[in-house]
Amino acid sequence: MSGCVTPGFGFRVTARDGEARAGVLTTPHGDVATPTFMPVGTQGTVKTLTPDEVAATGARVVLGNTYHLWLRPGPEVVAAAGGLHRFTRWPHAMLTDSGGFQAFSLADRRTASDDGFVFRSHLDGSRRALSPEVAMQVQGQLGADIAMQLDVCPPGDAPRADVEQACRTTTRWAARCLAAKAPGQAVFGIVQGGTDAALRAAHAEELAALPFDGLALGGFSVGEPIAKMHEVLAVIAPRLDPERPRYLMGVGTPADLVRAIGAGVDMFDCVLPTRNARNGQALTRSGKIVIKQARYKDDFSPLDPGCPCPTCVAGYSRAYLRHLFLAGEILVLRLLSAHNLHLYGQLTAEARAAIVEGRYAELARAWLEADRPPA
Amino acid sequence: MSGCVTPGFGFRVTARDGEARAGVLTTPHGDVATPTFMPVGTQGTVKTLTPDEVAATGARVVLGNTYHLWLRPGPEVVAAAGGLHRFTRWPHAMLTDSGGFQAFSLADRRTASDDGFVFRSHLDGSRRALSPEVAMQVQGQLGADIAMQLDVCPPGDAPRADVEQACRTTTRWAARCLAAKAPGQAVFGIVQGGTDAALRAAHAEELAALPFDGLALGGFSVGEPIAKMHEVLAVIAPRLDPERPRYLMGVGTPADLVRAIGAGVDMFDCVLPTRNARNGQALTRSGKIVIKQARYKDDFSPLDPGCPCPTCVAGYSRAYLRHLFLAGEILVLRLLSAHNLHLYGQLTAEARAAIVEGRYAELARAWLEADRPPA
Repeated sequence: MSGCVTPGFGFRVTARDGEARAGVLTTPHGDVATPTFMPVGTQGTVKTLTPDEVAATGARVVLGNTYHLWLRPGPEVVAAAGGLHRFTRWPHAMLTDSGGFQAFSLADRRTASDDGFVFRSHLDGSRRALSPEVAMQVQGQLGADIAMQLDVCPPGDAPRADVEQACRTTTRWAARCLAAKAPGQAVFGIVQGGTDAALRAAHAEELAALPFDGLALGGFSVGEPIAKMHEVLAVIAPRLDPERPRYLMGVGTPADLVRAIGAGVDMFDCVLPTRNARNGQALTRSGKIVIKQARYKDDFSPLDPGCPCPTCVAGYSRAYLRHLFLAGEILVLRLLSAHNLHLYGQLTAEARAAIVEGRYAELARAWLEADRPPA
Repeated sequence: MSGCVTPGFGFRVTARDGEARAGVLTTPHGDVATPTFMPVGTQGTVKTLTPDEVAATGARVVLGNTYHLWLRPGPEVVAAAGGLHRFTRWPHAMLTDSGGFQAFSLADRRTASDDGFVFRSHLDGSRRALSPEVAMQVQGQLGADIAMQLDVCPPGDAPRADVEQACRTTTRWAARCLAAKAPGQAVFGIVQGGTDAALRAAHAEELAALPFDGLALGGFSVGEPIAKMHEVLAVIAPRLDPERPRYLMGVGTPADLVRAIGAGVDMFDCVLPTRNARNGQALTRSGKIVIKQARYKDDFSPLDPGCPCPTCVAGYSRAYLRHLFLAGEILVLRLLSAHNLHLYGQLTAEARAAIVEGRYAELARAWLEADRPPA
């Protein structure tokens, strides 16, 4: 199988429709149909849900955050458990990020150098140094199927010189990460370049020359205008090596996924569906439901009539979910999390089918038109 | 069927072993094998769990708290939803308390009179008056299968005069509750009398003369020594009308249930298994596991090897559960709640089987001996 270089991995595109592609990513923990959405399991759990419930949404890859798991419980504990799969009881594929993003956004007193990041743990103040080699070593101990290279991710409003520097450093670290990769673990490279399509294209070309199993687009959804992101994506995603899986990091809303799939992206992750659920927001095809609103006090209809998710099928009403949310009951966080992740599962499943049947543009239009609150 | 007076309800004892009894409580929402443990669903949910998960523990009655549901979402909302069963999606039997206990323990600026309790809501300060008639009206709107009479529950160290007065008032309210009961709803009377067996016996006789569908023992587990409770229970429980179900309110640990079943109690409720779970305590046949303890850091065995609950069967290790608890992850609260309720479900199922087979004393001994931490 083409695309991936690490034994046990493969990627093949099975259908194209415009720039959109359907494919299959093969991993040691099973095949993953793409486009796919990967729920975020920051601390070794997709918040509030069991692995069975996550898999029921259609997800076949779960993300773990190296920064969090490095600090707690520690990679040695996860390794002693037999790796993140056995520790968390998730039987399908997993991916870990490099830890760099959180080392920069969450940690105390952080400094960046050519050699990585030095920071203090936000939990206990301990000093940690995250180099490309350490990022690969910790990810190797965690043992996900796919590891991400350490990269530099500048904010959305960074000056051009910083973005250029980030690309240069990321390329140097790319080679160091590949040299330090754990046996049997796939590694994806991360394309930076901000919202400058020419910089992105040049950086993508540099990384494509390296033996990565996939290529990710980092540095989006970091403060830049969303319209700008889609403008750059439309140019850049189709230019990423067509043989390898393309992963758009940290994006986004259902509408963002619909557009990015149209540009040829295969993989996504985002905390949005689960985080919004915990804030009391249900996502539906026709927009958001803010469950605490008084209008739902005696609305005994399900969140989204016709939705096949367990929350809607069980018949929990908006009024009941509102009551649980106002009463601070944990059950509602589960029910909304499952519902929101199911929407992402449905979206990606529908996208795969539409691409195979050559009607992706039509499907995309339907999702984008429905996703406007009624006037 | 004997025992219950309300149409649609019945109770029959199917086996006796010493004072212990196995029986069947018939309700409009199905038969309930006794002895039974009723998980507490204070605000219309057994905290952290879905109805399916609660039923999987073997529970066939769930408790709702009238005080909480009266204040939020309000009985008119629950009634408009079609009652507590439809609102919460619990398909089996339900029981609501009268609201009196919480009106006294939780509310602000409460006063008691011969006519009930007047208090301010702890949520919004609104003034509420809880009389026997209001208690029955609100419970009628909530629509559980079984309602509880309004009673006066003195603390465990109350002077004898207060306990006697509580019995007198509770008897007067008993008649008023029965006169005000909602059609089709069973009502249980509540025997008070503190730890004075003679007072208890006299009060039980007064209430047994009234057309209650069952008789409860209130005013236990309110601060008195546990040994004293069991001493009184051993005398009083066998003297409660043998034709009607006997319900011990707010009790207790697995060992408490084992002893009380031996004295002839049929029904129990307690927040202990779910509350302790949320505090990170797993209950097992051989004692408590405090999951945050450092000794579990790399203990990759299940909570309780051989336990058939979903948490243990799925293979979550003590180390993983500890990690989740320290990381503040909601999943662990679910997993421990399900585990603890399963233990209660197993205990009552084993008790029923042992009573039928005439070996309850042996079973009780095994539970009581195992429930000591290893030296």
